[in-house]
Amino acid sequence: MRMFDLITRKKRGGMLTTEEIGALVEGFVKGEIPDEQMSAFLMAVWFQGMTDRETSDLTLAMRDSGDSIDLSAIPGVKVDKHSTGGVGDKTTLIVLPVFAACGGVAAKMSGRGLGHTGGTIDKLEAIPGFRTTLSETDFFAIVKREGLAVIGQSAELAPADKKLYALRDVTATVDSIPLIASSVMSKKLAAGADAILLDVTVGSGAFMKEVPDALRLAETMVAIGEAAGKRTAALLTDMDAPLGRAVGNAVEIAEVVEVLNGGGPEDLVTVSLALAANMLVLSGQGDYDACREKAAKALSSGAAFDAFCRMVAAQGGDVSAVRDTGKLSQAKYTEEVRAAGDGYITHIDAEKIGLAAMTLGAGREKQGDSIDMAAGICLKKKPGDQVFEGENLAALLTNEPERFAAARSVLADAFRTGEQPPEERPLVLARVTKEKVETYYSGGR
Amino acid sequence: MRMFDLITRKKRGGMLTTEEIGALVEGFVKGEIPDEQMSAFLMAVWFQGMTDRETSDLTLAMRDSGDSIDLSAIPGVKVDKHSTGGVGDKTTLIVLPVFAACGGVAAKMSGRGLGHTGGTIDKLEAIPGFRTTLSETDFFAIVKREGLAVIGQSAELAPADKKLYALRDVTATVDSIPLIASSVMSKKLAAGADAILLDVTVGSGAFMKEVPDALRLAETMVAIGEAAGKRTAALLTDMDAPLGRAVGNAVEIAEVVEVLNGGGPEDLVTVSLALAANMLVLSGQGDYDACREKAAKALSSGAAFDAFCRMVAAQGGDVSAVRDTGKLSQAKYTEEVRAAGDGYITHIDAEKIGLAAMTLGAGREKQGDSIDMAAGICLKKKPGDQVFEGENLAALLTNEPERFAAARSVLADAFRTGEQPPEERPLVLARVTKEKVETYYSGGR
Repeated sequence: MRMFDLITRKKRGGMLTTEEIGALVEGFVKGEIPDEQMSAFLMAVWFQGMTDRETSDLTLAMRDSGDSIDLSAIPGVKVDKHSTGGVGDKTTLIVLPVFAACGGVAAKMSGRGLGHTGGTIDKLEAIPGFRTTLSETDFFAIVKREGLAVIGQSAELAPADKKLYALRDVTATVDSIPLIASSVMSKKLAAGADAILLDVTVGSGAFMKEVPDALRLAETMVAIGEAAGKRTAALLTDMDAPLGRAVGNAVEIAEVVEVLNGGGPEDLVTVSLALAANMLVLSGQGDYDACREKAAKALSSGAAFDAFCRMVAAQGGDVSAVRDTGKLSQAKYTEEVRAAGDGYITHIDAEKIGLAAMTLGAGREKQGDSIDMAAGICLKKKPGDQVFEGENLAALLTNEPERFAAARSVLADAFRTGEQPPEERPLVLARVTKEKVETYYSGGR
Repeated sequence: MRMFDLITRKKRGGMLTTEEIGALVEGFVKGEIPDEQMSAFLMAVWFQGMTDRETSDLTLAMRDSGDSIDLSAIPGVKVDKHSTGGVGDKTTLIVLPVFAACGGVAAKMSGRGLGHTGGTIDKLEAIPGFRTTLSETDFFAIVKREGLAVIGQSAELAPADKKLYALRDVTATVDSIPLIASSVMSKKLAAGADAILLDVTVGSGAFMKEVPDALRLAETMVAIGEAAGKRTAALLTDMDAPLGRAVGNAVEIAEVVEVLNGGGPEDLVTVSLALAANMLVLSGQGDYDACREKAAKALSSGAAFDAFCRMVAAQGGDVSAVRDTGKLSQAKYTEEVRAAGDGYITHIDAEKIGLAAMTLGAGREKQGDSIDMAAGICLKKKPGDQVFEGENLAALLTNEPERFAAARSVLADAFRTGEQPPEERPLVLARVTKEKVETYYSGGR
């Protein structure tokens, strides 16, 4: 195999064999294939795409480039959940406790965030004492006992993906469906669950801006998972406006607790229940309607909150700080964003809200940046709400008040108002399994 | 300017500004733009192309990345000639003496070859004593006195192109018309002539396999030259079979001498006269027919050969070895390729002949390889010739007889025969100037 020939073939629209893709990944990890050749190849893939078979081969080759977790010592059907990311996306911390409260088993490894806010791991660290680094023995023991645990990725899962992603990030080849799908799925497959639920977000605050692209990504990832012998399903969920009202770290934990106690914003509850129900379906607990009912009951009964508290305690966190979220880190400075006129909120640009949150200190601009756990944004109004001039639309939170100016300029036209409320759209836009694709919304997004 | 944004824009089909292209080239030469980003950009250009304006901007930025030669101290209209390369392509060594014999001025800098045979400079070094490295003073003096000189490239012309080409070579981004055109023209513009004649070869032995691609390349290069204020014209010439009968270094010099003495293969004479006549037109010596007549007279009168001998002498070469080419390096070993059956030669695959010549030692596989000046191939039959079984089709020449086997295997089906002679096609397929494109052949090639 000559890398030159593989680039040439791909740029002309040809296919690579399984062996060639294996050699490509191996050669790249070993440094035998230089970055400049790999980036030319990646750009050729951006234009020509990959077949499902090529995408699966790439995924498996990346999975096999590092460690794989063996969860078989933990009884039950282990279900993993992955979101393609969004603004205010704290569903994992609601969905996993609900799932565990219904008897599900979730041994989740999660990443740190880059961008708007911290990742799930960062958010959990807003709980005083919460340890996201555990030995495998401790991790397994907690999952066995409590049905859930969430830790940072410790083993070297899919190092080929890490190296490839770093290259894609500087060569403008991130936004390619086969490359995104193989990147996500290589890590999910290495993480060892029996089944995988994918939350593919769509809209201004998501990587996928349009439903058709998101559907294609979802179908590609489901096909990869199923080809690798894992039961896999994907939901397309709305990320046109931020999910819930809280965007940040400590504020998102507070909102999670609100939902787990039967309250919280309706959109967040709806999406979380749909995700939890689908995890239950994947774990073999019945059909969707039955699972949805179980999930709702776990929320209303307090069983999910109990599961969350048990996980917090098991991982060393201060349970009193989740029972009284006023004990979580609080921002010293607050500013309000006020409505410029009367009307209905027609749109809140999730991407801008996310950028503003990062500007306030809630997220990392680059790896290694520190996070201000108390920083973030709390939305006081959501799309569809009526507002009057001067009303409070959002609170900006930070410990460094010199950040307000920049955050305000990012937010300039994040809130749109009109004379009519916006069209109602479902929050779950589609469900993709190996067997079928159900779409619940066909309008533009 | 962020390189990431330029890659993104180009991959989406957008344009770069003049300033952005300038910064791109400068950043790349300085090493501020890493290879992996540049190769992603090049692959995006492969797919999306560049506008004429972008291509001109790229050319000028590469020209300005290094030295430029100032030929203004030499009186007259200096015309440069460039061929996109072929097998048995020795026209420069015929055309320049013809041009000089007609009063033209040619101060040519030429490269060493990579591939089938040596470049013009290597071929000239087959003449004992011939010096291809001269001081600028000596070079200018010879051109002033004799009307021509051919030296190796000494100044650092278009170093950006050199660096970019090395990257394109490993990333499968050589075959892009804007990148080829800017590469050729950046060096031609830096070489300082007043006018440029481009010989764009087409066919199996050329980089451009098809007439439409070659036409597009020719038009692009002419547009670049004219935009830079140089009178520029291009001929499309046939390179489906090798040009002439000799492929190598010393053997090509011998064939050049044959043509300069009024003999030689008809195809080589025809193409050489067309090129020389066009150089004369560019230098302002009249219309094409008049210039063609002048050129033919320079050949038949021996004036062109005299000019060649004067150049050889001026550059330290042994004139007796061009007067009696038997004195040039001769191969110790010869093998014949014989016809397998009766018929007409319908095609001789120039690319395979070239590869076989390289295999025999006539060319470099990689930079720095040494060349066997005596090695090469002499065709005994050309397309259209009738042959009988066992007749000699070609002589293989080398000083290392262990190379014969590999050369023979490359040649396996280089010669095609049929019951009918092939269709006659013109050798000059088109002529491109700023004002018009004349095509003389519209069939496939």
